[in-house]
Amino acid sequence: MSEGHKLNRSQRLVHMTRILVERPGEAIPLSYFMERFDAAKSTISEDLALIKETLEAEGSGLVRTQAGAIGGVQYWPFPSSNEVQETLAELCRLLRDPGRILPGGFVYMTDIITHPMWSARIGSMLAARFHAAQPDAILTVETKGIPLALMVARALGVPMVVARREGRVTEGPSFSIHYISGSTRRINTMTVGSRALQRESRVLIVDDFMKAGATARAMVDLVTELGATVAGVGIFVTTAEPQKKQVEEYTTLLTLLDVDEEERVVKIQPAQ
Amino acid sequence: MSEGHKLNRSQRLVHMTRILVERPGEAIPLSYFMERFDAAKSTISEDLALIKETLEAEGSGLVRTQAGAIGGVQYWPFPSSNEVQETLAELCRLLRDPGRILPGGFVYMTDIITHPMWSARIGSMLAARFHAAQPDAILTVETKGIPLALMVARALGVPMVVARREGRVTEGPSFSIHYISGSTRRINTMTVGSRALQRESRVLIVDDFMKAGATARAMVDLVTELGATVAGVGIFVTTAEPQKKQVEEYTTLLTLLDVDEEERVVKIQPAQ
Repeated sequence: MSEGHKLNRSQRLVHMTRILVERPGEAIPLSYFMERFDAAKSTISEDLALIKETLEAEGSGLVRTQAGAIGGVQYWPFPSSNEVQETLAELCRLLRDPGRILPGGFVYMTDIITHPMWSARIGSMLAARFHAAQPDAILTVETKGIPLALMVARALGVPMVVARREGRVTEGPSFSIHYISGSTRRINTMTVGSRALQRESRVLIVDDFMKAGATARAMVDLVTELGATVAGVGIFVTTAEPQKKQVEEYTTLLTLLDVDEEERVVKIQPAQ
Repeated sequence: MSEGHKLNRSQRLVHMTRILVERPGEAIPLSYFMERFDAAKSTISEDLALIKETLEAEGSGLVRTQAGAIGGVQYWPFPSSNEVQETLAELCRLLRDPGRILPGGFVYMTDIITHPMWSARIGSMLAARFHAAQPDAILTVETKGIPLALMVARALGVPMVVARREGRVTEGPSFSIHYISGSTRRINTMTVGSRALQRESRVLIVDDFMKAGATARAMVDLVTELGATVAGVGIFVTTAEPQKKQVEEYTTLLTLLDVDEEERVVKIQPAQ
């Protein structure tokens, strides 16, 4: 857009809302809007107050404005509790489809995780739960955790780090840990590029599915070994059994109670 | 938000812009806005016309409104040509940092690909190039292609499909092809769940990096074998050499001309 192009109020509201929603978590200085719309600080502040009031009144995300010389504004696309309830109910309906049952009692959910509409909604829900913990990086392990972790990272405006099953030259020097997989009892490796994860950072661990929690535990150990702090563990679907997981604290959106391959029934519900 | 809650024009503009920007590519019926804002069709149409005019005047995305009984509106977050130029120049600046040079002449770019701010911007640029080809699914191969492919899928409002290096029980029945990697000359496998890719679909292939193009070629073959159509091949960074790639047609955002490990120089530029 041409700089300094004068817009009326309606036009400014449309542009400012678009910019905030497209750049979640980013602190945008008021001066950016002032220059871009050739408008006084008081005008921009009024517009932002209206945007904040409008969005927050309906529970459509969170807007934070900071006053002062370096005043700025941040938007987070957190859903209202109504939206969360509706989305989780809809996800349960989809996942209960008996056609999703795979041999071994697995439930096919790749189509949901990899659809950007769903991953964005799931990511926003997880992001909302951990916003207060102030994570500054999201860690997941390849492959299925990536779409959800990226959308959590997007909603919070922080980078994502992907642990790999083996080191790659394109990741540079790396740090690895070994762990015993809960289901196969085999020794697995998890490796993360040394450049990717900063010491001192607060890391939110995200994955699509958890059973015994061996993978999540390995990520917790990886973060701790690297001198960073675990800001939380957020999982999309967690099995009810075993009750005792290898991570002590975690948040899950859905609980998978049972998959009956004979009766073709999937029992799943929003986590309590 | 409570249904039927009356809002004034400014408030409607803020909400409608947020909804459009958060749901790119999705066709949202006018009736959705009418019910949600307790407003007449003419009011909603006027609001949408203003939003469309405002965003398109500045090249901030594309808005399509369809008239008629099932009239609706779609938004795509395509950047203006100015924004594209600026973003590509900024990416080249970042990638020219000699600290990114890895043994073997590789360039570290994982931090960019996995940062949601960058992957969203790269994804929108690729999406804009292929919008006219009307893809209805995005295909990539694990692992590094996933963040970009997801963001292309998001910008177009279509699902993403991830080919795996080996079959997994959680993907259900799968289809595999074998191919010779361009660099290692080893036989590789690429496998995709049969549920994931529909026959008759138009598939856009997305990857982060291409050298000889063996991986892209394998994805083209996979799509063709499954009876689907290739809508295009979109790559973030492609090496200038070899000039002859294994895919005939592709679009790349950046061209990597040379990595001089001795002199510590990365030569990269926006593709012509």
